[in-house]
Amino acid sequence: MKKLINDIANVLDESLDGFAAAHADLVAMDPGRRFVQRRTPAQAKVALVSGGGSGHEPLHAGFVGRGMLDAAVPGAIFTSPTPDRILAAIEAADTGAGVVLIVKNYEGDVMNFEMAAEMAEGEVARVLVDDDVAVDNSSYTIGRRGVAGTLVVEKILGAAAEKGMALPDLVALGARVNAATRSMGVALSSCTVPAAGIPTFQLGEDEIEVGVGIHGEPGRRRAPMVSADAIVAELLKAILDDLKPKAGSKCLLFVNGFGGTPSSELYLVFNAARKRLEVEGLSVARSLVGSYVTSLEMAGCSLTVTVLDDELTALWDEPVSTPALRW
Amino acid sequence: MKKLINDIANVLDESLDGFAAAHADLVAMDPGRRFVQRRTPAQAKVALVSGGGSGHEPLHAGFVGRGMLDAAVPGAIFTSPTPDRILAAIEAADTGAGVVLIVKNYEGDVMNFEMAAEMAEGEVARVLVDDDVAVDNSSYTIGRRGVAGTLVVEKILGAAAEKGMALPDLVALGARVNAATRSMGVALSSCTVPAAGIPTFQLGEDEIEVGVGIHGEPGRRRAPMVSADAIVAELLKAILDDLKPKAGSKCLLFVNGFGGTPSSELYLVFNAARKRLEVEGLSVARSLVGSYVTSLEMAGCSLTVTVLDDELTALWDEPVSTPALRW
Repeated sequence: MKKLINDIANVLDESLDGFAAAHADLVAMDPGRRFVQRRTPAQAKVALVSGGGSGHEPLHAGFVGRGMLDAAVPGAIFTSPTPDRILAAIEAADTGAGVVLIVKNYEGDVMNFEMAAEMAEGEVARVLVDDDVAVDNSSYTIGRRGVAGTLVVEKILGAAAEKGMALPDLVALGARVNAATRSMGVALSSCTVPAAGIPTFQLGEDEIEVGVGIHGEPGRRRAPMVSADAIVAELLKAILDDLKPKAGSKCLLFVNGFGGTPSSELYLVFNAARKRLEVEGLSVARSLVGSYVTSLEMAGCSLTVTVLDDELTALWDEPVSTPALRW
Repeated sequence: MKKLINDIANVLDESLDGFAAAHADLVAMDPGRRFVQRRTPAQAKVALVSGGGSGHEPLHAGFVGRGMLDAAVPGAIFTSPTPDRILAAIEAADTGAGVVLIVKNYEGDVMNFEMAAEMAEGEVARVLVDDDVAVDNSSYTIGRRGVAGTLVVEKILGAAAEKGMALPDLVALGARVNAATRSMGVALSSCTVPAAGIPTFQLGEDEIEVGVGIHGEPGRRRAPMVSADAIVAELLKAILDDLKPKAGSKCLLFVNGFGGTPSSELYLVFNAARKRLEVEGLSVARSLVGSYVTSLEMAGCSLTVTVLDDELTALWDEPVSTPALRW
């Protein structure tokens, strides 16, 4: 294992300290390093809190700021944060208008966010994200995994919360965005969790993992390496077969790098995916390309398609000011 | 070689098409794919044009937009763009107020940008960037290499040009920013140029290349892997010995990923570098962390330090709206 780290035990703390210092204009770290919150807390709006295992940076802490999350709770690498940390974030973020938790569908996250919600004094509701069409149940989930579509849910709900949407409407909107969103990914290499010291899985020189999870969980199949066009065709077929968008629909196409893939390849994949969606009768009205929901240094990418309507498009376009997403 | 590509001959075109489509709100591609320019050209200001070999994305095309470049000319991977392409970009960008070329110090770039400047009808001047302290001469340079500090020059000159600074003053400012800026990098792995199909260089399981160039050129020494703190200490010593900043100086600290290193490691490196600069009596007044000047999928990072004064700080803070840098 060759990584830019010091003591394995301190990897997360040192990285979070660097993150908080580099973005001190936008975010502030809880002194106990339990959560990251906005530098200037929002007033009188429903608070959005997310979190989960670390190793997916910039998700979630990189999306704390105006127009997106109010607080994010990082767990250890690929490990859910404990309920006490989540509770601390809920209490710090709640301005009296209640809190919506955005939770990726992994058993640990679901359980720990639920326990925190039960302990909280204020009103707390949950939006569950399970956008990954690759597998129905997996190593860490009952049902589908939540992956890169989480960003889409956080951005759109963030804009709606900023505009004053009430808690029950935010929960309904979150369910609607999740239902309009599907993802699937492919790995060209494994990642190595520092505390493990060895790659999470092994791929041959010419092999890929189709449908990989963001912790390196197995996907649908191990396959020989093929062209970007062929990979895109397989991922989009799985996504569209499940999403069943109406012909002529407008969509957001999000090409997400897993950490070890350069942006030039991601843009090439975007080009291939955009063309294919148009052949399928969809129009790519909004785009996002970058490494936003990662698996440490894993090479590969995922595709996410969200069917847009006027409301979702307008909320996607609303200003956002976070360390990792700004416009 | 396992990459998300189709035909090796079309890698650059397909990637550029994806880039232009994903950021069609900000940039436009020349129909002949010779250069990328702003979607809405600026009026009556000195134009800034940069470019160079591809493979360093988002440099340079990702920095085209309001507050930064007017046009960028991508060459083949790790290969300077030809003079005719540069000339086309100069002519498209010139509004009559002249053009400043921002050129990284590599022989091919220097020669081709000079030829284009000579062929141009309008006033054209050049700012040369040579911020890499690692080696004095190298595979492709007489003198020092231009690396991640190029981003700092492009951002600060971009802000000054937007505010109406005249051409000779921009050239002087560019020289001043370059003189206040030093960088040095370290590679943990090689990259693979698609057309070559094999890694540019070989590193052992536990080896690093200290002072590596952004094309995988050799640095100062091949060394055993050490901690992030030790790497940061060596890079910053080389930078500060050369830069000789006054005690108490404010600086910009830019931790740049080479493409294959996750942001969590970059933030950990930022944390280490910031602490060390403070021990050295410098104050980190501005920060940038991310993979901005890359070498395809190479793992590793570079550190860049720019000594700031009030003018440079204010220009750094000016709004910027490009695909890869926005605030």
